[in-house]
Amino acid sequence: MKLQPVKGTRDFYPPQMALRNWIIDGWKKASLRNGFEEYDGPIFEYLKMFQLKSGDEIAQQLFSMQDRGGRDLAIRPEMTPTLARMVNQRINALPKPIKWFSVPRLCRAERPQKGRLREFFQWNIDIIGIDDVLADAQIIFCAVDYLSSIGLTPKDITTRISSRKMLAALLKNIGIEQDQLNAVYVLLDKRGKIPPEVFEKMTDELIEDNSIKRKVIDLMAVTKLEQIPEIVDLNDQAAQALDELKKLFSILEIMKIDQFCKFDISVVRGLAYYTGVVFEIYDQAASLRAIGGGGRYDNLLKDFGGPAIPATGFGMGDCVLEILLEEKGLLDPAKITSKTLDCFIATLDDKLMNNALSISSDLRRAGIKCDLSYKTSALGKQLKAASDSNAAKCIILGREFIDSNQVIIKDMSTGDQETVKIKDLIASLK
Amino acid sequence: MKLQPVKGTRDFYPPQMALRNWIIDGWKKASLRNGFEEYDGPIFEYLKMFQLKSGDEIAQQLFSMQDRGGRDLAIRPEMTPTLARMVNQRINALPKPIKWFSVPRLCRAERPQKGRLREFFQWNIDIIGIDDVLADAQIIFCAVDYLSSIGLTPKDITTRISSRKMLAALLKNIGIEQDQLNAVYVLLDKRGKIPPEVFEKMTDELIEDNSIKRKVIDLMAVTKLEQIPEIVDLNDQAAQALDELKKLFSILEIMKIDQFCKFDISVVRGLAYYTGVVFEIYDQAASLRAIGGGGRYDNLLKDFGGPAIPATGFGMGDCVLEILLEEKGLLDPAKITSKTLDCFIATLDDKLMNNALSISSDLRRAGIKCDLSYKTSALGKQLKAASDSNAAKCIILGREFIDSNQVIIKDMSTGDQETVKIKDLIASLK
Repeated sequence: MKLQPVKGTRDFYPPQMALRNWIIDGWKKASLRNGFEEYDGPIFEYLKMFQLKSGDEIAQQLFSMQDRGGRDLAIRPEMTPTLARMVNQRINALPKPIKWFSVPRLCRAERPQKGRLREFFQWNIDIIGIDDVLADAQIIFCAVDYLSSIGLTPKDITTRISSRKMLAALLKNIGIEQDQLNAVYVLLDKRGKIPPEVFEKMTDELIEDNSIKRKVIDLMAVTKLEQIPEIVDLNDQAAQALDELKKLFSILEIMKIDQFCKFDISVVRGLAYYTGVVFEIYDQAASLRAIGGGGRYDNLLKDFGGPAIPATGFGMGDCVLEILLEEKGLLDPAKITSKTLDCFIATLDDKLMNNALSISSDLRRAGIKCDLSYKTSALGKQLKAASDSNAAKCIILGREFIDSNQVIIKDMSTGDQETVKIKDLIASLK
Repeated sequence: MKLQPVKGTRDFYPPQMALRNWIIDGWKKASLRNGFEEYDGPIFEYLKMFQLKSGDEIAQQLFSMQDRGGRDLAIRPEMTPTLARMVNQRINALPKPIKWFSVPRLCRAERPQKGRLREFFQWNIDIIGIDDVLADAQIIFCAVDYLSSIGLTPKDITTRISSRKMLAALLKNIGIEQDQLNAVYVLLDKRGKIPPEVFEKMTDELIEDNSIKRKVIDLMAVTKLEQIPEIVDLNDQAAQALDELKKLFSILEIMKIDQFCKFDISVVRGLAYYTGVVFEIYDQAASLRAIGGGGRYDNLLKDFGGPAIPATGFGMGDCVLEILLEEKGLLDPAKITSKTLDCFIATLDDKLMNNALSISSDLRRAGIKCDLSYKTSALGKQLKAASDSNAAKCIILGREFIDSNQVIIKDMSTGDQETVKIKDLIASLK
């Protein structure tokens, strides 16, 4: 009998844990240097909270359960509803802008696929209280800042940016009704993810008028902001949204990340709650799913029972990122290791075991990462143990200790040895 | 309508998150300097795995759910079953001893009480493959090393230590049958947690023979290892277990943590799987629940389908610890903060906003934690924003920048100001 983990979940043995820690530490550092503060919520919430605004796709993907009182609960499939709840609960007390990040563990009850597991970690950053593309630019910068800090370049990844607000205005100008907009967003979001003939069939079903359909297809073929007025007449709302996007791109240039960014009208995002700038980050070849994505969601806090307050944010999971970094050869085993001992104590005489224990305790209390053999054995065997545990130094307790209270410190990378008095050991190691 | 979190769970706003991070960082650092490597498993597992060996108490306390295939799953209520599963899966490939730690989020579907929530974090450390009290001593040392590193002293806490192996041998010598042992452990574990008259009644029900009952009660009144032979004749097994405990205490003395430890025969631990040394850490007044506890569990891996391999470990939750640290005044707000900016950029002229954006990006890329006002305002207001965000320095962009490409760096703690050329800014801040 071998017990198995549930399919779509991962066991993090120390090497896998080291990789997860390396990714998450990078997310945290990028968040902190960009001025975000960390928060978290519970791993489960009332089921109804997730059903409130996430659309059907999310609702089907929940792990739900009941507490002893029969109340319906679910493991969080995304962080934004918890964020909205927490911000609304203290909306008056929290100074604005709210700049928060989180690295939640999330679960979705879907079929596991490449880059898509039932349990994963997701970096979330959000700015609440700023009604300006400056905030969207800060979010995009933080995401790119992280990705470039781990070695990804504009040759590897692109941030594809558009605007829901602009798209809505343009689609309405073309003749799409307000109540059809969400259905059209979902359709456009699927373009490129489904075969062209399926897309065409779905478009035929959704948009009956041929001239409108033609214009939608022409609009979706646009590759530059400047082409838009040639295809659709700009009303005030569309003109304003277009100006906002232009301002966003000029800020990205000032922040020197324009090489990582491009306009892409096909970026729509599936979720209903986006209201302004939307973006997705892809590998250049777009052979993988999106590495991350986000955008402005100015109505969400109100929809969750709070005041009308502008908000923008971004999320990035660990699964696709890890695949990309592996492909690009950016996972450096020297940096990503679970073994980080400062020293390992080798004891050559049973009589010295108590001394080894006493020394190891003193070193640890002094903050020095230290381990030791639990029994004496030949020096070679213990040096191998020191080497296997990736220790920087090996402290050898043998005849020198019995004769004159001295130990040998062996540098495991150079092989150099020095003999030091036991009372000077901590100073020598520090 | 205000959405609420589920009772017994916690929202970690940035100040609470800073405290959680401070506790968990301390656990991780103590683990690493004691030579443990980090691992983790999934947040949910097959329900049957938790039912396998955890006794009725745990089984009732699970949040369970089904996946789409109708398989029963549960959120993990403790880490040890996952540890046993993971170790067994790779038992031949893993070098021994296995020294692992983890900081899992755990959930229990019980009624929330002081120090006992439905969702909490628990530090776990385990040594697998060492059949020697030396390993138990290493576990106890690591726990005490952490607790003393955050300021707790022998005046605040005690590690109460006993041995299941010794207790089993003594109880059998007294006349308790092998198949009654687990029931007696559960009973003894409850002593001190229930009223004396209830304890007496339960004892009467469990142990019918009055002379046996008398001896059990006398045994439980023992306070020193030396008293035991006066009350019960030692057979070989009891004598050996007694020697082991004596050896353990001598090692704890060598490691200089004997002031934190004492023998306490009443420590039994409720869970069925302990086989040797057991211990619990309490505040001196014992006014709170146990801060943590653990012991040797040599049969668990075998019971989980693996080979017979000795193991010992320890767990400590965050809830009771936090209450104790609060009571002792050991939560230092200066160390436990979510706001850690290196600098804040104040911009005094709208024309300079793009420069501020450009500078902030350069600083962040250089690893300097930096934020800025999203619009210009009076210097006083921006200095207050810098102060509110706990920034070490405020960089002021004003006339000096327009005139001569210089900025003012204001030290927020001393108030000192210096003027530097923009090209020297990063060097000045580092």
